[in-house]
Amino acid sequence: MVRPIHVLNGPNLNLLGLREPHIYGHTTLAQIETMCRDAARGDLFFGQTNHEGQMVDWIHEARETAGGIIINPAGLSFHSVAVLDALNTFEGPKIELHISNIHARDEAHRHSLLSQAVTAVIAGLGAKGYPVAVGAMYGAMGD
Amino acid sequence: MVRPIHVLNGPNLNLLGLREPHIYGHTTLAQIETMCRDAARGDLFFGQTNHEGQMVDWIHEARETAGGIIINPAGLSFHSVAVLDALNTFEGPKIELHISNIHARDEAHRHSLLSQAVTAVIAGLGAKGYPVAVGAMYGAMGD
Amino acid sequence: MVRPIHVLNGPNLNLLGLREPHIYGHTTLAQIETMCRDAARGDLFFGQTNHEGQMVDWIHEARETAGGIIINPAGLSFHSVAVLDALNTFEGPKIELHISNIHARDEAHRHSLLSQAVTAVIAGLGAKGYPVAVGAMYGAMGD
Amino acid sequence: MVRPIHVLNGPNLNLLGLREPHIYGHTTLAQIETMCRDAARGDLFFGQTNHEGQMVDWIHEARETAGGIIINPAGLSFHSVAVLDALNTFEGPKIELHISNIHARDEAHRHSLLSQAVTAVIAGLGAKGYPVAVGAMYGAMGD
Amino acid sequence: MVRPIHVLNGPNLNLLGLREPHIYGHTTLAQIETMCRDAARGDLFFGQTNHEGQMVDWIHEARETAGGIIINPAGLSFHSVAVLDALNTFEGPKIELHISNIHARDEAHRHSLLSQAVTAVIAGLGAKGYPVAVGAMYGAMGD
Amino acid sequence: MVRPIHVLNGPNLNLLGLREPHIYGHTTLAQIETMCRDAARGDLFFGQTNHEGQMVDWIHEARETAGGIIINPAGLSFHSVAVLDALNTFEGPKIELHISNIHARDEAHRHSLLSQAVTAVIAGLGAKGYPVAVGAMYGAMGD
Amino acid sequence: MVRPIHVLNGPNLNLLGLREPHIYGHTTLAQIETMCRDAARGDLFFGQTNHEGQMVDWIHEARETAGGIIINPAGLSFHSVAVLDALNTFEGPKIELHISNIHARDEAHRHSLLSQAVTAVIAGLGAKGYPVAVGAMYGAMGD
Amino acid sequence: MVRPIHVLNGPNLNLLGLREPHIYGHTTLAQIETMCRDAARGDLFFGQTNHEGQMVDWIHEARETAGGIIINPAGLSFHSVAVLDALNTFEGPKIELHISNIHARDEAHRHSLLSQAVTAVIAGLGAKGYPVAVGAMYGAMGD
Amino acid sequence: MVRPIHVLNGPNLNLLGLREPHIYGHTTLAQIETMCRDAARGDLFFGQTNHEGQMVDWIHEARETAGGIIINPAGLSFHSVAVLDALNTFEGPKIELHISNIHARDEAHRHSLLSQAVTAVIAGLGAKGYPVAVGAMYGAMGD
Amino acid sequence: MVRPIHVLNGPNLNLLGLREPHIYGHTTLAQIETMCRDAARGDLFFGQTNHEGQMVDWIHEARETAGGIIINPAGLSFHSVAVLDALNTFEGPKIELHISNIHARDEAHRHSLLSQAVTAVIAGLGAKGYPVAVGAMYGAMGD
Amino acid sequence: MVRPIHVLNGPNLNLLGLREPHIYGHTTLAQIETMCRDAARGDLFFGQTNHEGQMVDWIHEARETAGGIIINPAGLSFHSVAVLDALNTFEGPKIELHISNIHARDEAHRHSLLSQAVTAVIAGLGAKGYPVAVGAMYGAMGD
Amino acid sequence: MVRPIHVLNGPNLNLLGLREPHIYGHTTLAQIETMCRDAARGDLFFGQTNHEGQMVDWIHEARETAGGIIINPAGLSFHSVAVLDALNTFEGPKIELHISNIHARDEAHRHSLLSQAVTAVIAGLGAKGYPVAVGAMYGAMGD
Repeated sequence: MVRPIHVLNGPNLNLLGLREPHIYGHTTLAQIETMCRDAARGDLFFGQTNHEGQMVDWIHEARETAGGIIINPAGLSFHSVAVLDALNTFEGPKIELHISNIHARDEAHRHSLLSQAVTAVIAGLGAKGYPVAVGAMYGAMGD
Repeated sequence: MVRPIHVLNGPNLNLLGLREPHIYGHTTLAQIETMCRDAARGDLFFGQTNHEGQMVDWIHEARETAGGIIINPAGLSFHSVAVLDALNTFEGPKIELHISNIHARDEAHRHSLLSQAVTAVIAGLGAKGYPVAVGAMYGAMGD
Repeated sequence: MVRPIHVLNGPNLNLLGLREPHIYGHTTLAQIETMCRDAARGDLFFGQTNHEGQMVDWIHEARETAGGIIINPAGLSFHSVAVLDALNTFEGPKIELHISNIHARDEAHRHSLLSQAVTAVIAGLGAKGYPVAVGAMYGAMGD
Repeated sequence: MVRPIHVLNGPNLNLLGLREPHIYGHTTLAQIETMCRDAARGDLFFGQTNHEGQMVDWIHEARETAGGIIINPAGLSFHSVAVLDALNTFEGPKIELHISNIHARDEAHRHSLLSQAVTAVIAGLGAKGYPVAVGAMYGAMGD
Repeated sequence: MVRPIHVLNGPNLNLLGLREPHIYGHTTLAQIETMCRDAARGDLFFGQTNHEGQMVDWIHEARETAGGIIINPAGLSFHSVAVLDALNTFEGPKIELHISNIHARDEAHRHSLLSQAVTAVIAGLGAKGYPVAVGAMYGAMGD
Repeated sequence: MVRPIHVLNGPNLNLLGLREPHIYGHTTLAQIETMCRDAARGDLFFGQTNHEGQMVDWIHEARETAGGIIINPAGLSFHSVAVLDALNTFEGPKIELHISNIHARDEAHRHSLLSQAVTAVIAGLGAKGYPVAVGAMYGAMGD
Repeated sequence: MVRPIHVLNGPNLNLLGLREPHIYGHTTLAQIETMCRDAARGDLFFGQTNHEGQMVDWIHEARETAGGIIINPAGLSFHSVAVLDALNTFEGPKIELHISNIHARDEAHRHSLLSQAVTAVIAGLGAKGYPVAVGAMYGAMGD
Repeated sequence: MVRPIHVLNGPNLNLLGLREPHIYGHTTLAQIETMCRDAARGDLFFGQTNHEGQMVDWIHEARETAGGIIINPAGLSFHSVAVLDALNTFEGPKIELHISNIHARDEAHRHSLLSQAVTAVIAGLGAKGYPVAVGAMYGAMGD
Repeated sequence: MVRPIHVLNGPNLNLLGLREPHIYGHTTLAQIETMCRDAARGDLFFGQTNHEGQMVDWIHEARETAGGIIINPAGLSFHSVAVLDALNTFEGPKIELHISNIHARDEAHRHSLLSQAVTAVIAGLGAKGYPVAVGAMYGAMGD
Repeated sequence: MVRPIHVLNGPNLNLLGLREPHIYGHTTLAQIETMCRDAARGDLFFGQTNHEGQMVDWIHEARETAGGIIINPAGLSFHSVAVLDALNTFEGPKIELHISNIHARDEAHRHSLLSQAVTAVIAGLGAKGYPVAVGAMYGAMGD
Repeated sequence: MVRPIHVLNGPNLNLLGLREPHIYGHTTLAQIETMCRDAARGDLFFGQTNHEGQMVDWIHEARETAGGIIINPAGLSFHSVAVLDALNTFEGPKIELHISNIHARDEAHRHSLLSQAVTAVIAGLGAKGYPVAVGAMYGAMGD
Repeated sequence: MVRPIHVLNGPNLNLLGLREPHIYGHTTLAQIETMCRDAARGDLFFGQTNHEGQMVDWIHEARETAGGIIINPAGLSFHSVAVLDALNTFEGPKIELHISNIHARDEAHRHSLLSQAVTAVIAGLGAKGYPVAVGAMYGAMGD
């Protein structure tokens, strides 16, 4: 039986669909969670936090139970060595997800520090990137 | 009726008046809160946190109720994209406040990443900068 | 009726499956083409070239007929302003694809100049990234 | 009796209200002078020059008579070591003022060289920043 | 009737033809003025100054009367934000002119800060660049 | 009798008038060729290529027959040492031409590597820059 | 009587002995705590947190009771100005400890921002570095 | 029997002996080919191209038949990741050759990107470097 | 007969002896002028200006009459290409003089742009550096 | 039986206790040698040299006889690739020692080039760091 | 009669064949000396030193007697301006030799400062590079 | 009685007058020593060394006996922290001397690391700079 996928969302993503829709679109995080569950073939953890420490804790928990991690680190992408180190402790497949194409944004949002610690990066597909990532994760999990 | 101003203080400011008075002066944060309330024409939220996540939460709450944000991000000024993104979700006037003149300090404290997301920056007026910022905020709120 | 997707592959990808399998895997480009055609709902152009000029020409042709471009620019990713400019002339959705996670590689392969001109970037999913991109492209094409 | 405040304005500020109102607003320098005099509790010198040398001369004169300097160095902010050195010769409080939030502008206007030589910096409050600075100056002068 | 072109020359150009002829050629500024007047279809202002402040003043005056500005900023090209800001206040066509090809010179003379504020740049045509610029200006003025 | 001028155009310029008219205008390359021929006093070679190697070949051919080279290297401007070296083998006058003012564009398009190898640079005059360059070339050829 | 030493451990150190043993060794944090208590001559506080804000709080508490701080900031070492500022408020001896030799690691883990605020740095001694630091702390406390 | 050496020459080398003899000397490429064949103990492929794509193709072909590659990438040395990637697919010995001592030249010609992918580099021996490289190649091929 | 030496002083030097004596000492500019005249064997021009343009004019005048220039450019040292270009037009010996050892100062005062255009640099000898420079100038003038 | 520890000291350390005691303390090198011998469980080589070459020689000798190297490279820390290479030839444990906390010093003393070649780094413990290092070395030697 | 070649070897090369054979191979320096003498057509000086000053002295001596210098500066390659200046005093042919391909190594070993002062560079041929260099030197000496 | 001046000369200066006279002139070091002794009012030590360690030793000796140090560090100027640290241990006046104007030379010779540790810098006066420095030293010694 396939182990669950953990979908972890970082700071400010609780406002998705509400803030700056020209960058992040109109889909809410609740809708995205539904999209992810629809795409999943089994259990799926879905969480959001504005706290770096909580994100680290969740990645540690994933070590116990998750088959793979999909992480949208949002504002933590660009400097958090704590999250980087946490990701390095997880040996299964990890997909870093960004709703916008960060590489086409301003200097502060252009280079994710975390990408070096993940299996794959998907950026710019909007909310639709989430189910794409869920699907790709099953591929990466050798399913 | 004017909406309340939210005055948000970042890490270590709970020690104001106690730590490094040659940089930060002798006024305590409690005294500064009093100065702010004296300068305010109505309600005012005043908070301090050492947690980046709490700061993000408070900015989100300000979206609901605040007329303007005065933020002294302290140590979060220099790398927190999470706070930067949170500030970008707030559409009212935002004043970034620093007690010391950060531009005259060492490399680690010289360039605030957050300044690009605020309306105005006031730095170097010491504790007196708080009531100055409160007064200026009413001007920025078109009051 | 949906317009065809153009899948454009840059230098050295003709050797896929043959060269450096620890980085690029064992799947050949012919097998990838099959995977793409299987994933496509209609017509699909699939090409590979070692010539920057040919890549520019193909992008120009896509302006006439393609609904979307999936481009794995390979070695052209990192300096080719000619391809960058060509991509900017195409107004439909564009997905940049990399087999390896370029962000985790050496300095010469880490920052794609082209990402600023595309809709989305997918990197690190191996050969499986191609059908994922084809699927995602239909989403991006509003299909 | 309180010594007068000197308000010194640099290049192009004679066009305030006329040029690029989306950046600098619609208030003219004459109106700003009136706002400053209204906010002042006593004498106030108000000048504008397009010449670096004149600005240096005025700062030298302030050594004799001024209680504090409010300087909007405009285009001189970013490279003039001559003005920097002049400011360093003035021992009273100095407030650097910018109408726009320079920290949110382009590379050429983002980092003021002069900030290291002043007591405080106020940027982004528009024309209203002038009376705010005048008020804050009395605070800085211990008044 | 076409508005006059203002041809503004910066520091040291009064020595043209006298100093460093291997870089700047043997034509004097007076001869260049004649060349410009010959090329002009109407009135033409021609000035030279070693003072940044004077250059700013002249650009301000051009706002009133000039159809276009041809500026050889010489030594002011490389750091003067004051001139940059002044140029940004002029909405008509602006041509930046350099006698030598500055892009082929030493580090201190290679990157003009002002080019971002002008319509066009012409560099390296020697004294003959002036009448070329006058001719091109009529084109830019839609004449 | 004057030797012919060679006008060489780089990648994507075949789309002139079609792509991004807010940057490059509405004139097509065919119309530009006509403008050049009208401005020429004799024979004129006019070519466009998306291939770096072809551009190098054309510059080599110019060594045999051309009196001067006008080159709009487009996307090759920013990294092609091959074209740089080729230009260095041509001893006659060389004018580098850009339709837009590249110095006012984004980082990837701002600094031409080739400018160090040419006699003169003209940028920002739009399609009209071509006949201006042709005229200036006769001046540079001592005609 | 000697004041207690506070040993503060940052993000991911709860996984010591479990994650990446080729870098961090096989000793667990619980074992390290025992090693520290064995080396201590008196009371000793020992804590671990994944939260920057908690780390700041602990340093503030150390101001009241600790004779010295031994901090292994882990992922907070590289960007946290909040922890830097907190450390600057503690006037007793501070030893920064790293299990691995961070100076020999990748770019993201090489330069600790915090080192400028501590008395001493010990890196690369593995788990054994903890009792070494405890012993050295008594020396630094003048014991 | 020893496999043939492939000697691959990049852009502009067809002009050797004709262009800039103070840098590249007076020997023509045809003469160099003769020198190489004289130094070779068996078959030898010798080619020159101004096209990056052709160079990539030739390196691919070398995978089938060559015992070693001697490459003078000329202008492709400094940015071509396509050639870099191609070289990485060739597992036999590779010698990068430059006629001039590139390390003593201007910034654009000083650092070869390709050197990280080759076995050895020889620069500055002039045309004589070719037979030296051929001789050294037999050594590297274990002959 | 020996031509006169021109001693040219830049911004803020009129305050010598008055401002920041810990850096610049207690000698006034008038006293320095006397020291220079005492050290001179003939005529000597001595001037001070806060205006870059005036400095350029004086260097131009020196072309006519001076045997050598001693320049203390003060705040103009660090960015003024106008003064740099002016100095390049003077063919006699030029000594750049700084009262303090600028190389041991802060970043803004450490690297003089002008040094590349002078014969010699003397820095750090205090007011006594002036007569030393006068003496050295006669040596440089071949006297 | 345990092999001896070699304690190697670089330039200027012969002046310890005499020079700049605010940085380096009052303990002399002879006293430090005594402290080291007291802390050692067996033989110990202790040397000091101002010559890079001598330091390289000593490290070579340590290859023959030493169980571990404690090196205070002093001024050689920041650029000596010769010492770096020498250290890389020694396979036993190596501790780099600095009396002051170099990470808190000026730019020239902040980043040791050698740290990448050692097992551990101890900095800032003053003279007491030596016996701490000796003790830690026995731990690193598995004793 | 041909003047002797001087072969000068820098720090740590006395350990060749003993240290890090995966980088430097198994040939000893004594064997290399034999290889050089075998390849030489006449007298040959061969020396090794760990002292920069000795290397400078040897280069000075070469001015008197050597026909050419082959130098493997090893760890002196990357910062020694003393050796750079010494090499600049030698007017005959100079070949810089590295056993490994330094351009493919880590940052500290990648860019030789000395290459700008030599005739040619040979890197990556292993011990066999020495006789290759000897042979090439006769070519460079016009023999 | 005045303490002697120590004149210390670094690598390659033993070749003065012999090497590169277009940079360093035709005066030999022996002649310079005579010039120094002629300019001295008392005893004077004059030495030259190609060894960094010797230079450090000499500076240490100067601590005992010298009234002031004149040092021409030559190639040691640009990286030697050992000499920098040695100079910092000498509390009397120190003049750094360069025969050429290093600030006008190439990148490797432009910025002396040592200047931050000396009282004054004199560069570009040629051999005549030595007696000038001797004279200035007496001034700096308060004589």
